[in-house]
Amino acid sequence: MVDDKFYVTPWDVVGKVDYSKLISEFGVGEISSDLIKRIEKIGGKNFMLDRGIFFAHRDLKWLLDEYSKGNKFFLYTGRGPSGKMHLGHLMPLMFTKWLQDAFDVELWFQFTDDEKFLFKDKTYEEIQKQMEEDFLDVIAIGFNPKKTHFLVDTKHASIIYPEACKVAKKITFSMVKSSFGLNESSNIGQIWYTSMQAVPAFLPSVIKGKNIPCLIPHAIDQDPHFRLTRDILPKLGYNKPASIQCSFLPPLTGMDGKMGSSQGAAIYTTDDEKEVERKIKKYAFSGGKDTLEEHRRHGGNPDVDVSFQYLKYMFEPDDSKLKKIYSDYKSGAMTSGEIKQIAIDKINAFLKEHQKKRKSAKSKIDSFMYHMK
Amino acid sequence: MVDDKFYVTPWDVVGKVDYSKLISEFGVGEISSDLIKRIEKIGGKNFMLDRGIFFAHRDLKWLLDEYSKGNKFFLYTGRGPSGKMHLGHLMPLMFTKWLQDAFDVELWFQFTDDEKFLFKDKTYEEIQKQMEEDFLDVIAIGFNPKKTHFLVDTKHASIIYPEACKVAKKITFSMVKSSFGLNESSNIGQIWYTSMQAVPAFLPSVIKGKNIPCLIPHAIDQDPHFRLTRDILPKLGYNKPASIQCSFLPPLTGMDGKMGSSQGAAIYTTDDEKEVERKIKKYAFSGGKDTLEEHRRHGGNPDVDVSFQYLKYMFEPDDSKLKKIYSDYKSGAMTSGEIKQIAIDKINAFLKEHQKKRKSAKSKIDSFMYHMK
Repeated sequence: MVDDKFYVTPWDVVGKVDYSKLISEFGVGEISSDLIKRIEKIGGKNFMLDRGIFFAHRDLKWLLDEYSKGNKFFLYTGRGPSGKMHLGHLMPLMFTKWLQDAFDVELWFQFTDDEKFLFKDKTYEEIQKQMEEDFLDVIAIGFNPKKTHFLVDTKHASIIYPEACKVAKKITFSMVKSSFGLNESSNIGQIWYTSMQAVPAFLPSVIKGKNIPCLIPHAIDQDPHFRLTRDILPKLGYNKPASIQCSFLPPLTGMDGKMGSSQGAAIYTTDDEKEVERKIKKYAFSGGKDTLEEHRRHGGNPDVDVSFQYLKYMFEPDDSKLKKIYSDYKSGAMTSGEIKQIAIDKINAFLKEHQKKRKSAKSKIDSFMYHMK
Repeated sequence: MVDDKFYVTPWDVVGKVDYSKLISEFGVGEISSDLIKRIEKIGGKNFMLDRGIFFAHRDLKWLLDEYSKGNKFFLYTGRGPSGKMHLGHLMPLMFTKWLQDAFDVELWFQFTDDEKFLFKDKTYEEIQKQMEEDFLDVIAIGFNPKKTHFLVDTKHASIIYPEACKVAKKITFSMVKSSFGLNESSNIGQIWYTSMQAVPAFLPSVIKGKNIPCLIPHAIDQDPHFRLTRDILPKLGYNKPASIQCSFLPPLTGMDGKMGSSQGAAIYTTDDEKEVERKIKKYAFSGGKDTLEEHRRHGGNPDVDVSFQYLKYMFEPDDSKLKKIYSDYKSGAMTSGEIKQIAIDKINAFLKEHQKKRKSAKSKIDSFMYHMK
C-alpha cells in the first residue's frame, strides 16, 4: 500500500508505518484480547502477542475453532535468501517456533531462492550461497526437526511447480499489477513468482490427500501475496490459509521502515560482541535528551528509543522488567548509555547462543530438508 | 504473424499460409540447395528436404560447420500434450528421427504439459492422461532409446525451473506481449511459459558443463518461442540454437490452416483402417473435377488435392512414384477415387506398423525418461 508518508510492499517498507492504517487498507483483522486468551489457554502466554508485536490476522478464529475440534493446522513461513540474516528476520521465526511448540504442529519452511534471484541484482550463485547460510540461521532457531520441512523453490520445483501452475492459471497480469505494482517492464519471472509463494499453503494438503488448515506467521509486508493466495485457493478446492502478522523490527537508525541491509541499519546474526556494541553505541537511535542534565530532568522517550524497542520486540520477555526499564528511562533515572548497555548485553547473550547453534546446524540441514518421494 | 489472409502463432494457424511471406516476416532463412547437398553428404537424401516440406532454418550453415569440425550438435524438439496425436504431429517427428540416425546425435524431447494446462481449457489430470498416450506415439516413431531423453516440464521441474528463472529474468512482459500477442488478461503462467520452452536448448550444455550446439526441428508456428530463446541464450553464455522448420500438413478439409482436432480435420494415430477409409473418402478435399467425364477431359489439380499432399508430405518417399501419381492425376488418367485409395492404403499400412510399435511402447517409457541425478 502507498501513502504520502509510508509505503509497504513485499519488497519495500519506507517511512513510519501506521499499522492501524495498514489494518484497514489491507483488510486484516486486529488480534482481539479474546483471541489472545484462546491462544494462551492452549500454549501459554507469549510476549509478542501481549505486546501487540503480532498485531493482525486473517481467519485466526476459524483456525482455533478447527484446532479445538481436533483438526490440527500446519504452519507455513519462509525466507527469501538475498542478503545476510539479521535480527529483524529472526523475530517472526522465534514466534513461529513458539507456535510450533505451543500447538505441537508441523512447519513447512519455504526458501524462495527463485524470488530473490528474479527481483534482486544478484547472480544465481550468490543467492544459492546466501541460502546455505540461511539454512544455518533457521535451524539455529530451534525448530523441531521431526516436524519441520524445508522447501527450496528451485530444488523442490518438481513438487512445487505443478501446483504453482494450477494457481497461476487463476491469476491474470492485471491482478499482479494491482497487487504488487508490477508493470510491462517487469520480468516474466517476477510476474509469475507469486504462484510459487502460494503453494506451501496447500502442498501438505496435496501430499496428505486431505484439506489441512494452514497458519502463516509473517511480517505484514507479505500480505499482498497471501491475500491473492486466499482468493485463489478455494477455487482449487483448498482452505483459505489463516495468517498472523507482525510489525517490523525497527532499523538501528530509528522508527522509520524496517531493519534492513542498508548502512548501519542492521545487526546481523553473525556479528560478534564488539560489532554489536559498536553498532548500538554508534547507530542506535536514542530517545534520550541531548545532555545528561536535561535527561535527568525531563527523562527520555522509550517509544522512539531503538534500544528499548529491541528489548520490547525480542530480548526482554519479562513484562515487569521491561516495564521498569520503560519507567526508569522515561523518568530519567536510566540514561541512554545505560539502556544501550542493557540492549548490548541482551543481544550479545542471545547471539552467543544463536551462533553456537548455528555452528552445529550444518550437519542437520539434510534432516530438515523435505525429501521428495 | 498476422495477415488479412492468414495468421500463424504458436497456438493458432488460420487461413492459407503464404510460406514465402512467413520467411520474410519471421526473418528465417530459406534452405538453399547448397545446404541440402551438405546434409545429403552426411546423411543421405531425405524427401522432406528435397520437397521443401522442411523449408526454412536459422543458423544451419553454422551448425554444419561445427559438425564438420567434429563438434556434434544435439536435437531438441517437443510435444504439447493437449489432444490426441494425429498425422500432422508425426510428420516433423519422422524427420527428427531421420536426423538423429543420419547424424548419430542425442535428442532431448520436451513434453510441455505445463503449457497445455496453462493455455487450454482442460484439467491438469486430462493433460497428464493425454501425455501418457503421447509417450507411446513418440516412442513408436523409433527414436534411439540410448540417445533420446524425455523431459516432462512438471516432472523434471527441479532441473528445468532453475534454468527457466535465468531465462525469465531477461524477458519483460512487453517482450512476450509483442512476441505472442499476450495481454493483461493473460494468466501469469502463460506469460511465464516461454522461459520453460527455452531451457532444453541449453540444458544439455548445463549438464555436460560445456557449450554444445543445438538444432531444433519444428513446425514454423513455434518460431516466436525460439526467436526469443535465440535473443536470450547468448546473454546467459550459451549458443543461439539453430533450427530447421517445416510447413504444416494440411487438414483433411483442404489447404487452409494445419491438421488439427476440429471435426473431420485430422487422422489420429489410433484410427483403425475403416476410420481412415471413412475420413479420406468423406472429408479429404479433392482436386478432381465434378464429373468423371470432366475429370478425364481436363484432369485434376494435385496441388490442392489433400490425398496427394499426404503422399507428398509423408507416405510416398519415392520421387518417381510420386511424380507419376502427380502427372496421372493432372492428366485425368487417375481418378479422385483412385488417388484417395492410394492414400488410404499407404496411411493404413503406416498406421498398422505405428500402432504395433505403439502397443509395445508402454514398457519402454522409463528407458526414454531422463533420470535426474
